Amino acid sequence: MDIADWRKQIDELDRRLVELLNQRARAAQEIGRLKRDTNLPVYEPEREKIIFENVKRINHGPLDDRDLLRIYERMIDVMRQIQKQSIGGDAPPPADTEIEGQVND
Amino acid sequence: MDIADWRKQIDELDRRLVELLNQRARAAQEIGRLKRDTNLPVYEPEREKIIFENVKRINHGPLDDRDLLRIYERMIDVMRQIQKQSIGGDAPPPADTEIEGQVND
Repeated sequence: MDIADWRKQIDELDRRLVELLNQRARAAQEIGRLKRDTNLPVYEPEREKIIFENVKRINHGPLDDRDLLRIYERMIDVMRQIQKQSIGGDAPPPADTEIEGQVND
Repeated sequence: MDIADWRKQIDELDRRLVELLNQRARAAQEIGRLKRDTNLPVYEPEREKIIFENVKRINHGPLDDRDLLRIYERMIDVMRQIQKQSIGGDAPPPADTEIEGQVND
């Protein structure tokens, strides 16, 4: 395979990654709505730890755990914002109402 | 579906995401090796732009483009490091030899 072939493969991987990331965002939104509707606490500090442990356990490289967790930290941060928006009524809250680190998907 | 069901779905999505991220890393490594072996330039500034345009074009939400690109910026940054390592002989280069922004997958 030449560089153009590998880039075609990357573009196809990106198509699948974008789809999965959106499915994950949808699940985070649904969890946010369930928490809102049932008055469950939104802050569950063990959940993020479980996600990172899961990711490390299923990782077989070539990415090392540190690199994979760097990607996941950003992903979880974005998903946390998505969930906050779904709890707040599907609209981004004003900046001054955001409480960092208090929503886990 | 309750919260536990959605979390099971997230764990399954993460299993697939970790697999795809590793496939993408493998492709970045292979491109790095091809560039090294053929003395092709490693810096192709248009490629990263194309990746971001592709991602925006195939995004149908609920993630908005800004959120998706935040995730992709981190992902591309990690992949750039992976490619640098493959060009440098499969080992992380000393910190003082790294040249930021000069490798694209």
